[in-house]
Amino acid sequence: MNPYKTMTFEEYRQYDALGLAGLIRKKEVTASELVEVAITRAESVNPAINAIVHPLYDMAREMARQAGPNSIFAGQPFLLKDLALEVAGTPRCSGCQGYRNYISESDSIIVERYRKAGLSFLGKTNTPEFGLTPYTEPRLFGPTRNPWNLGRSAGGSSGGSGAAVAAGITPLATASDGGGSIRIPASCNGLFGLKPSRGRISLGMGAAEGWSGAIMEHCVSRSVRDSAALLDAIQGSAPGDPFLAAPPEKPYLETIKEAPGKLRIAFSTAHPLGHELHPECIRAVENTAQLLESLGHDVEMAPLPYHREDLTKSFVMMVFGEAAADVQELGEFLGRPVTFADVEESTMGVALLGRAFSAKDYAYYRRKWNGLARRAGAFHQQYDLILTSTVSMPPFPVGALQPTAGEKKLVRVAKALGLRQSLKSKIDELAEKLFSYIPYTPYANMTGQPSMSVPLHWTPDGLPVGLMFTADMGREDILFRLAAQLEQAQPWMNKVPEV
Amino acid sequence: MNPYKTMTFEEYRQYDALGLAGLIRKKEVTASELVEVAITRAESVNPAINAIVHPLYDMAREMARQAGPNSIFAGQPFLLKDLALEVAGTPRCSGCQGYRNYISESDSIIVERYRKAGLSFLGKTNTPEFGLTPYTEPRLFGPTRNPWNLGRSAGGSSGGSGAAVAAGITPLATASDGGGSIRIPASCNGLFGLKPSRGRISLGMGAAEGWSGAIMEHCVSRSVRDSAALLDAIQGSAPGDPFLAAPPEKPYLETIKEAPGKLRIAFSTAHPLGHELHPECIRAVENTAQLLESLGHDVEMAPLPYHREDLTKSFVMMVFGEAAADVQELGEFLGRPVTFADVEESTMGVALLGRAFSAKDYAYYRRKWNGLARRAGAFHQQYDLILTSTVSMPPFPVGALQPTAGEKKLVRVAKALGLRQSLKSKIDELAEKLFSYIPYTPYANMTGQPSMSVPLHWTPDGLPVGLMFTADMGREDILFRLAAQLEQAQPWMNKVPEV
Repeated sequence: MNPYKTMTFEEYRQYDALGLAGLIRKKEVTASELVEVAITRAESVNPAINAIVHPLYDMAREMARQAGPNSIFAGQPFLLKDLALEVAGTPRCSGCQGYRNYISESDSIIVERYRKAGLSFLGKTNTPEFGLTPYTEPRLFGPTRNPWNLGRSAGGSSGGSGAAVAAGITPLATASDGGGSIRIPASCNGLFGLKPSRGRISLGMGAAEGWSGAIMEHCVSRSVRDSAALLDAIQGSAPGDPFLAAPPEKPYLETIKEAPGKLRIAFSTAHPLGHELHPECIRAVENTAQLLESLGHDVEMAPLPYHREDLTKSFVMMVFGEAAADVQELGEFLGRPVTFADVEESTMGVALLGRAFSAKDYAYYRRKWNGLARRAGAFHQQYDLILTSTVSMPPFPVGALQPTAGEKKLVRVAKALGLRQSLKSKIDELAEKLFSYIPYTPYANMTGQPSMSVPLHWTPDGLPVGLMFTADMGREDILFRLAAQLEQAQPWMNKVPEV
Repeated sequence: MNPYKTMTFEEYRQYDALGLAGLIRKKEVTASELVEVAITRAESVNPAINAIVHPLYDMAREMARQAGPNSIFAGQPFLLKDLALEVAGTPRCSGCQGYRNYISESDSIIVERYRKAGLSFLGKTNTPEFGLTPYTEPRLFGPTRNPWNLGRSAGGSSGGSGAAVAAGITPLATASDGGGSIRIPASCNGLFGLKPSRGRISLGMGAAEGWSGAIMEHCVSRSVRDSAALLDAIQGSAPGDPFLAAPPEKPYLETIKEAPGKLRIAFSTAHPLGHELHPECIRAVENTAQLLESLGHDVEMAPLPYHREDLTKSFVMMVFGEAAADVQELGEFLGRPVTFADVEESTMGVALLGRAFSAKDYAYYRRKWNGLARRAGAFHQQYDLILTSTVSMPPFPVGALQPTAGEKKLVRVAKALGLRQSLKSKIDELAEKLFSYIPYTPYANMTGQPSMSVPLHWTPDGLPVGLMFTADMGREDILFRLAAQLEQAQPWMNKVPEV
């Protein structure tokens, strides 16, 4: 069947996606062979990590056969997060029991672009229900586990993609980020993950405007150049886009070859909620600040323009409204009221809050995003980049952030008795629990700025800790240049977990 | 005092702003003299039309003295709508009793740009409370009247600017458009008015994101080139902007010198609510279609991608949330609950609805904007422009759309008894009344598209009827080129009302 030499998994995982595409073009391997290596790896590790929830192996085989070797990714295997992306003829569950029978009718705009880039769709990856949590433990498919330690969280909401790439199934996989969901799993799984600027990529029809402009799609990957090449392939607007970003001056794949120059970088280890960062996160930031200084950058500790109120009011009010809209759309799909058989208690609770708060609350707090973005804009007159840890601690045990039995009961009672308002008193407590873990990531979603997590630190017991850099609106170029410099200065490609 | 010849009002009104700037540069007149002509005209006509609510005559005199003749508008007089724009040290009431003592602390970003363009601020113009209605009849300042017929509405919400420019006080004045508020007064007052694309101009800090992206600022003017020159002066983003538009390829002042080419134009006289258009509006559209054909364009009647549901649900839900947020911010300014002494019944009613509907409703219907924008994007693959009348009838009598005594009482009772939900049953009726008048303008606000009203038709009894053209996102260039062609083919500058 295969005219070329047989590639082993150990050989496969030494390459990033562009490297594999080069081998295909040199005829050292075929796209079909790579797909078989990926399927074998998936079958071997997925039972342990639960990253792929819809295998599409035959589709991938067919796509690999059809792929032209001159497309940028030359037909090699790829995974897509099972959230907003529609791939015609395949399931799209969004981590939700109520959508378990949903089959996409057509491709999303981005998916059409993945096809043109020569990627073969090997499967769809696990996500929490509607992508609502920073961990990936949906009732529908069960928890995704971290390849670096199977007892730990793979992060979320793109945890399935993060775990799959870390485990070597594919060199990159799609991810989407409305509050950190690209960067958090990048951090948890020792990967590179960049959230592009608002408007960089058309989200198309199905995904609406992506949580009022908060969400951007892209990927997690092992190499920086894979991320740059994929963004080159999918960036750009489509008719009817609500947000537009100024087009990049040149392809990001060229940008990463340029030296970043002397960047002005503000860093902080302060937690916007006043909590303590985990000592390993503090160490990670301090070591990275030193590394940046040694590379010639201007690095200084500075107070960040981030406040508790922004997270617990401005950000959560958007999530309440959007989650409630998700549940309403689910009811339309089902043609009947949504019950606890369709969605999890945590989702129902958030949706009840979206009905308890008013249109006024949504609009009022959405307006605050503008102040935040203006503060960020002013801050970036002084600094090119903000450096923090991506999350506040190394990957936590699977299940640790799940709602308690008492919290679940509270939601069921509130739903049964129509007591939406009663849930409001619990918000601060829940927000505290959530944002204690992700005190930094949601800002770039509210302001629209590009932001990336770079795998530069591992704990003594071998858990990855990502470092987050955020640039001014539209400046992915600065992020990519620095990421490429850091990848060269402190390579992480050779770090791989044993699963 | 004045070293040059004295200019009469009749001479002054023969020129547009760029024409007057040319006279200043040729030293045929001074900016100071123009300001005096404008003040004299304002003092003469404003008692009849009630367009200027905050005269700033001494400020204008000082600005004219300081102005460099080489700025594009060379120091000549200008009026600003008294809504979102902040001019340091001047009142900013937004048509609202509760803000009657508010004084702006600093300039808005756009106002800084007006200063740089060499405009002298002669005063601020009347607007309905928070710009909420398509007529200009605030309780605080009373109704603005139409210079073409003092018994008729000047439209809204930029009715003060429209009436002032039509009456010849200044050749152009600022306007802002969240549902038609540039185009409606342009139509009612026989002026040119273009709403730019979302993100074309930075709304800056105070204006938040402008009704979730619906609002854009610009102006009403007598000539097309004045509008183009002003947009050149104020377009462009500022740090922290939430929406960005691709910069124009060249200044619009150059664009208008280019032939528009053969445009594909879809027109319609169908009313999205199924009502009848006024016969004069039908005649206006049909005559314009003929004129366009005679100019060589491809013109055809086509069903428009506009539906009743878009207006009565998607658009009003945003208005409810935003108006309620406005009232909440007013309460914060006052430091006490807002009462009927502070805001009108109609505003309070809309704000109560913003509290009666949920965050879910806001988010759910805001998502529908995306579908609308996608439909528009697809439509513009086939047509360059959509042509309709701007509004559904010639200017109606002052007071005709005011809430009835019964409607006002309903709001007072609902507020007193906390019966917000009771108002919901009245929405369809109120929406019907409002959108019967403006069935076309709100679409471009939801989709972000540029749209203009061009003064091409007058009724037999001398009332102006504007024609509205809407282009694809970012294509102000197409609009400006066509407007310049129409201005040449069927000039309107010589049409002036007798006040």
